[in-house]
Amino acid sequence: MSNFINIPGFKEVNSEGKNPFPLNQWYVAGFSWQLKDKPVGRTILNEQIVFFNDENGKTCAIEDRCVHRFLPLSEGTLDNGSVRCGYHGMLFDGCGKCTEIPGQEKIPRKAKVKAYNVEVQNDIIWIWFGDENNTEPNCKPPIYEIHSNKDYVYGGDVVHYDVPYQLIHDNLLDLSHLGYVHLVTIGGDASTHMNADMKVSDDGKNVKVTRYMLDSMPPPTYLEAYPFQGKVNRWQEIEFCLSHLKIWTGAVDVDTDDVEDPNRGGFHMRGFHGITPETETSCHYFWTMASNPTSNIEILKEKLIDHTARTFHEDKVIIEDQYQSMLKFPDEEMIDIHVDLAPNRARRIIESLR
Amino acid sequence: MSNFINIPGFKEVNSEGKNPFPLNQWYVAGFSWQLKDKPVGRTILNEQIVFFNDENGKTCAIEDRCVHRFLPLSEGTLDNGSVRCGYHGMLFDGCGKCTEIPGQEKIPRKAKVKAYNVEVQNDIIWIWFGDENNTEPNCKPPIYEIHSNKDYVYGGDVVHYDVPYQLIHDNLLDLSHLGYVHLVTIGGDASTHMNADMKVSDDGKNVKVTRYMLDSMPPPTYLEAYPFQGKVNRWQEIEFCLSHLKIWTGAVDVDTDDVEDPNRGGFHMRGFHGITPETETSCHYFWTMASNPTSNIEILKEKLIDHTARTFHEDKVIIEDQYQSMLKFPDEEMIDIHVDLAPNRARRIIESLR
Amino acid sequence: MSNFINIPGFKEVNSEGKNPFPLNQWYVAGFSWQLKDKPVGRTILNEQIVFFNDENGKTCAIEDRCVHRFLPLSEGTLDNGSVRCGYHGMLFDGCGKCTEIPGQEKIPRKAKVKAYNVEVQNDIIWIWFGDENNTEPNCKPPIYEIHSNKDYVYGGDVVHYDVPYQLIHDNLLDLSHLGYVHLVTIGGDASTHMNADMKVSDDGKNVKVTRYMLDSMPPPTYLEAYPFQGKVNRWQEIEFCLSHLKIWTGAVDVDTDDVEDPNRGGFHMRGFHGITPETETSCHYFWTMASNPTSNIEILKEKLIDHTARTFHEDKVIIEDQYQSMLKFPDEEMIDIHVDLAPNRARRIIESLR
Repeated sequence: MSNFINIPGFKEVNSEGKNPFPLNQWYVAGFSWQLKDKPVGRTILNEQIVFFNDENGKTCAIEDRCVHRFLPLSEGTLDNGSVRCGYHGMLFDGCGKCTEIPGQEKIPRKAKVKAYNVEVQNDIIWIWFGDENNTEPNCKPPIYEIHSNKDYVYGGDVVHYDVPYQLIHDNLLDLSHLGYVHLVTIGGDASTHMNADMKVSDDGKNVKVTRYMLDSMPPPTYLEAYPFQGKVNRWQEIEFCLSHLKIWTGAVDVDTDDVEDPNRGGFHMRGFHGITPETETSCHYFWTMASNPTSNIEILKEKLIDHTARTFHEDKVIIEDQYQSMLKFPDEEMIDIHVDLAPNRARRIIESLR
Repeated sequence: MSNFINIPGFKEVNSEGKNPFPLNQWYVAGFSWQLKDKPVGRTILNEQIVFFNDENGKTCAIEDRCVHRFLPLSEGTLDNGSVRCGYHGMLFDGCGKCTEIPGQEKIPRKAKVKAYNVEVQNDIIWIWFGDENNTEPNCKPPIYEIHSNKDYVYGGDVVHYDVPYQLIHDNLLDLSHLGYVHLVTIGGDASTHMNADMKVSDDGKNVKVTRYMLDSMPPPTYLEAYPFQGKVNRWQEIEFCLSHLKIWTGAVDVDTDDVEDPNRGGFHMRGFHGITPETETSCHYFWTMASNPTSNIEILKEKLIDHTARTFHEDKVIIEDQYQSMLKFPDEEMIDIHVDLAPNRARRIIESLR
Repeated sequence: MSNFINIPGFKEVNSEGKNPFPLNQWYVAGFSWQLKDKPVGRTILNEQIVFFNDENGKTCAIEDRCVHRFLPLSEGTLDNGSVRCGYHGMLFDGCGKCTEIPGQEKIPRKAKVKAYNVEVQNDIIWIWFGDENNTEPNCKPPIYEIHSNKDYVYGGDVVHYDVPYQLIHDNLLDLSHLGYVHLVTIGGDASTHMNADMKVSDDGKNVKVTRYMLDSMPPPTYLEAYPFQGKVNRWQEIEFCLSHLKIWTGAVDVDTDDVEDPNRGGFHMRGFHGITPETETSCHYFWTMASNPTSNIEILKEKLIDHTARTFHEDKVIIEDQYQSMLKFPDEEMIDIHVDLAPNRARRIIESLR
């Protein structure tokens, strides 16, 4: 059970009551298109946070609490790049400082809430969680170039899960479940998925999983999106790090590009999966799906997005039910099988970062 | 934080497990029009109580529990001024005594539930909560003459709040929130509300708050209800005591009656707000709104009632969200601002009565 | 309060944390017609169990948990009499043994879940709950011949109750509530029910309750179902044992068969009531109603089933509200009345079996 040391409901959990999440890390907090004319409240790593853009368009994140009577600031309104409380109108800037108390001249020095380090990179909002002695980021947030690559179109969304976040890592690092969970969407033949040769490697910070399926028929979506000539060589490449996973799939015509060459052509579907803890037992799943269709671009983009959203809904049902069942069997030990190689390496990496 | 000493979720709460509410007091339990052909169950100060009218029309309140298998009596039926249990038909009178066990001759002496002292005064049902040594009321319940004043029409209702009752006192004693919470109803200009001169006084049992806005334009509702000639002098008078608040607003034509004279004429809106704890974290809000329109009386009455109900719904959302947020920040201290003068005096009065 | 010793919420409950239910007993787990092309998950006596028919049609019950990541097996699919997990496709047979791990040759010896002893008897699925030293049944499950009697037609269903199971015994062993709870269905005159002479006997394992109402008018349903000539003699016979109750009612024409003769003719309604704990505070109510109408057989059968289902819904409301009320009065003692004779004997029997 040691791999599941930080799953709530199990014995060894958080016995010291410490923050159960790795600190001094960037986490995904949203996408820039989600911040428009309203402040957005979100709980991240057990902290209540409100996100908004200041008067220069810079994204800010401060504690989601008016210092007066504690109404969440996310229920207020945006006012020239500051957020105004919806109860008595107190105004807070992007540094968390109260800059106006309607009807009162003096603003108490203590009228201030915590501000967070936030950066927007390729449309992804990143938030830094430092430890007590170390609130400033010691690095830049990850680059995700695909969002800025003009050969790709993409879209995405956020899904809320009532499970500890690592159960989603397990799911994404082991695509062998496709044949059982996603029968009506991306499933296909279960035994092909279960038996495809899989390479797993890690460098202590990232886990990589690759699978190649050569000389196979392209699935219908691929045929619609790209002018394949006949049979194809397909790839499935997963890369995990603490804050997110990249899942890149695609295909080239046989006898053209090398399927393992990062610069290969062909049709690509590139998924970004930012999994961010909300609490010990719930998380946010921020995802985008990017692709390079050669025709019907907007229609195919919408189709891929819709398809991906449905697939995630199937996963959500399974993973949430799995977690409820885990809580009912606190004394039983899980039995690992061949597909758990990559998920277990990811667990070890997270454990080493805590 | 001492002002919030009895807010659940905060450290200092009820450490001795005592009844957290002031005793030897009348509390509002309902309105007489709510008791018709069915017994009405209501939890008040953590006690389950059933209300009904006996054969003489006198309102009674007894414990809401059949002594046999504990089905709430409020799920039974009224039978000639007694309440009959809906399971095996046992009958209880207004003193809480079981007077009939169908199919059994002898009624055990212990077949009795607690009865409460109840009085109906101006259509308001009042219930006495004494302490252990002192179950009889030591005074009459408050008079609320407006309900019996033939110059006024009124209506009202009860709203349930999932918050400690004092958060509603805070809200009502500080009308400066009107400009932020009630933008689409009675709001008006936020800064006028926040900046109007406010007088607060208290005598150890009651808190009074007054605000006067002179030489201003009457709002549309006022114009519909009363033949104002032009600009008006307006008043806003709040009076708090443990069991209820009176909030009286209105206007007279300028250069006519003295706006501070209790016998002034003009247009009046008089609100009664009975806030009664259900449990430590929930309460009943019994309200009426009375007015003296000079024309379209029934239409304007309905309009004012409807308007008031909508306003309370806006408050309910804010106050319930505020409370949920308070529970998430148990270690943070609230910062008082100018508008908290009256609410804090009310808290001190309740503290002194516990 | 000693009769209520194992009602949660009351003081004396389960202080040692032991299994609160009698063991070495057969309990009702369902009806054979409920097992078709899908596995069925059900919690019984605090254990998560999945039921399905194996390739020979034998009903099996195993722990409802895949040993891999704990997804309930009841969310999987049936595959040739085994159940396949809906996450990674592991296959389990009726003995709880994992017989296939897709993509993996070796199956760990520990890949096994608990199997239960199950027997189907007269369409009723029975499950044996032994104690730690004694997992094999020491007897056959009860016979319920009526389900196999060609003179009877029957149907049934299962209802979930959020109450400790003994509250349903109380309800069924004391039909005097009919006049108050079932006014609009089988109620009839309350005082007749409350005053009918009742005989109660027990032999330490079963409680029997009989009531006879002689020379009365047959109710409308009886007249529709059977060619009565005029007035009838009616009976009401209840038999309780730990796992279920039989409630047999009916009537013969006066001056024909002896109403107390087990071989009497006339019209019969025979109810089976299997009450099985789910947890300490919830249970499953498996019921059937059998009858011998002489005409319009299918129509009358449907009518009786529908009528019975509605009656149980009325009971469910009362009993669940009763339980919620009991939780609010943990310190009050219940007062027994004449109708509690049989329920109290049933409680003593259960207490003696624990």
